[in-house]
Amino acid sequence: MSILDIIEKKRDNKELSKEEIEYFVKTYTNNEIMDYQAAALLMAIFINGMTHQETTYLTLAMAHSGEMLDLSTLNKIIVDKHSTGGVGDKVSIVLLPLVSSLGVPIAKMSGRSLGFTGGTADKLESIPGYKTDIGIEQFKKNIEQIGISMITQTLNLAPADKKIYALRNSISCVESIPLIASSIMSKKIASGAQKIVLDVTVGKGAFMKNKEDAKKLSNTMIQIGKLANRETVCILTNMNEPLGYAIGNSLEIIEAVNFFKGNMPEDLKQVVLELGSYMLKLAGKGDKLEENKKMLLENIENGKAYQKFLELVKNQEGDISYIEDISKMPKANNIKPVKSRQKGYVQEIDSKEIGKLANMLKDENDLTAGIVLTKKVSDRVEQGETIAYVHANNENKLIKACEKIQDIIKIAQKEVEKEKTILEIIK
Amino acid sequence: MSILDIIEKKRDNKELSKEEIEYFVKTYTNNEIMDYQAAALLMAIFINGMTHQETTYLTLAMAHSGEMLDLSTLNKIIVDKHSTGGVGDKVSIVLLPLVSSLGVPIAKMSGRSLGFTGGTADKLESIPGYKTDIGIEQFKKNIEQIGISMITQTLNLAPADKKIYALRNSISCVESIPLIASSIMSKKIASGAQKIVLDVTVGKGAFMKNKEDAKKLSNTMIQIGKLANRETVCILTNMNEPLGYAIGNSLEIIEAVNFFKGNMPEDLKQVVLELGSYMLKLAGKGDKLEENKKMLLENIENGKAYQKFLELVKNQEGDISYIEDISKMPKANNIKPVKSRQKGYVQEIDSKEIGKLANMLKDENDLTAGIVLTKKVSDRVEQGETIAYVHANNENKLIKACEKIQDIIKIAQKEVEKEKTILEIIK
Repeated sequence: MSILDIIEKKRDNKELSKEEIEYFVKTYTNNEIMDYQAAALLMAIFINGMTHQETTYLTLAMAHSGEMLDLSTLNKIIVDKHSTGGVGDKVSIVLLPLVSSLGVPIAKMSGRSLGFTGGTADKLESIPGYKTDIGIEQFKKNIEQIGISMITQTLNLAPADKKIYALRNSISCVESIPLIASSIMSKKIASGAQKIVLDVTVGKGAFMKNKEDAKKLSNTMIQIGKLANRETVCILTNMNEPLGYAIGNSLEIIEAVNFFKGNMPEDLKQVVLELGSYMLKLAGKGDKLEENKKMLLENIENGKAYQKFLELVKNQEGDISYIEDISKMPKANNIKPVKSRQKGYVQEIDSKEIGKLANMLKDENDLTAGIVLTKKVSDRVEQGETIAYVHANNENKLIKACEKIQDIIKIAQKEVEKEKTILEIIK
Repeated sequence: MSILDIIEKKRDNKELSKEEIEYFVKTYTNNEIMDYQAAALLMAIFINGMTHQETTYLTLAMAHSGEMLDLSTLNKIIVDKHSTGGVGDKVSIVLLPLVSSLGVPIAKMSGRSLGFTGGTADKLESIPGYKTDIGIEQFKKNIEQIGISMITQTLNLAPADKKIYALRNSISCVESIPLIASSIMSKKIASGAQKIVLDVTVGKGAFMKNKEDAKKLSNTMIQIGKLANRETVCILTNMNEPLGYAIGNSLEIIEAVNFFKGNMPEDLKQVVLELGSYMLKLAGKGDKLEENKKMLLENIENGKAYQKFLELVKNQEGDISYIEDISKMPKANNIKPVKSRQKGYVQEIDSKEIGKLANMLKDENDLTAGIVLTKKVSDRVEQGETIAYVHANNENKLIKACEKIQDIIKIAQKEVEKEKTILEIIK
């Protein structure tokens, strides 16, 4: 087999075989073919596309290119949850303890902050003492013990995906449906997921800017799931404005704790219940989605979800006194309210812009900086009313952000219709 | 300007601007962008194509990427001739002295043998003493003195083309019309050509396997010529069987000398007269092509072309006694006739296969090995009749070649129609 023949075949828009795709992934991971050869092939894939079968071969080859997490010793169905990324996205932090409190084992490896989107691992680490790098044996032990563990990626999972992604990023080949789909699914398969619920975010603060592309991506991932024997459900959710009110690591933990206490922002609640109802279904806990949602709400109300969260934090060596008295959580030195310059209705809060601004606010290793909105799109605003609080340790950045946020939170004179949060379910 | 934006634009099938193409060529030549970025862009160009305007910008940017031969001091119209490559192709060796003998200045830089095709520079060097690397000042002086010089490429002409061609070769991106056209034309423009006659070979032993592709390539080169202000004519010629009878360096010199003496193989004669008539026309020596052909034939008959060839060889320090007595030319140790195993008509002599075989026959620095056919396609053959002579210094190779050649020269029972030599003129 020769890489030149493989490149030529895809260049001429022909379908690659399993062996050809495995050859590419293996030789590229082992540095046996050159970056420029991989670049030519990736560009040909970008332009000419791949069939679902090819995409599945690519997914599985990348999944098997490094270590594979084996969770079979747990002897339970492992349902994983993944989001394609967003701003203010604390879904995992509330959803996973909640689902775990209903007896579904949770083995979650989360990512770090990337670009303008946050990372669940960083958010969890803003809880004093919380360890996300406990090692894989402790990870499994924790799941056996209390049914949940949430850590950062510690194994060498899907190194081929890492290498291919880095290359795509430097040759303008990121936005390809088969390449994005195989990248996401390969990591999920390598991390031991048997069933997968995907939060496919759509809009300004998401990778997928429109519903059409999000549907294409979802359909591709579902087909990969079918061909790779990993049942997959995709929930398309709105990411035009940030999810909930808080953006920033410790600020989102505070919002999550309040959520457990019953103080649930409407959009966050909808996403958590929708994803949760499918996780329960895939885990065999009930086929009726509305019933599942009731079970989830019940475990918020009776405090079981909150108790599970405390257990999780404690088990990861986090200091739960900060959770039990959330006012103890570390805070930025400066917290400044931003007042509306006009009255009207919130027309737009571009989540990409808010995400970039929240990122800009942070100094290095700063987990307290961020933004807390007080309004959502369509809310009524009076002149001089506080529309957001900016949290920062760096005063210069604080002043800049307070100015900038006035442009980002757009106010209209006329009433604004609220957009739907759950856009579509694809399964 | 950013290479990522340029890649993205071509990836999305948009037209690149002059500045963008110049930026790519300049930064790639200077190693300021990575091979994998150039590879991604070249693959996008391969698949999505380029407009004639884009191709011209690429041609000119590559032409100006290194030294440019300035022939303006000669104060004459410089008409260059170039072939896209063939087997048994000694056209330059007979055509250029012939045209020069009619007062058209010839400043020819020839290539080396590449793959299964021969190189004019190697062929000339098989004349004892002939120097192809005389330096650019001597080159110009020779042209001023006797109206012709034929050397190898000594200047650093179009280094961008060299670098891009090498990369294309290692990422399966060779067979792209705009990339081939710009590669050929950039070298011609860098070497000072003002008008260009192109021998676009078509068939088994050519780069272009069919007439359709050859026409596309020709049209692209003619458009580049128009946009770059270099009048260009393309002659499509048949390269299914080798041109003339001899394949091999010194063997082709012998055939060329015989040509000057009036012993002209029909196909070679047609190509020389067709190309020559257009060279004369472009040089302003006469608009009537049939008249031009007559002038060319006349200078064969009256010996002026042969005299010009002797002058050329002498001026390049070649020993003309080998030309004047062609039997003195160095010969291989073994010359073996190959006899036909059956009677009939020659159906096919695949020129690519013959080219590869002639190449295989050579030891290192061996300029005498090769093949001399005695038959052309459609010729009648008797059983036991000699169909070719194999010349070799290496006996093992000789034996292998004699066997192999039986398969290459295919004999049919029925009469075979001769193919046309000149397929089409595109201007």
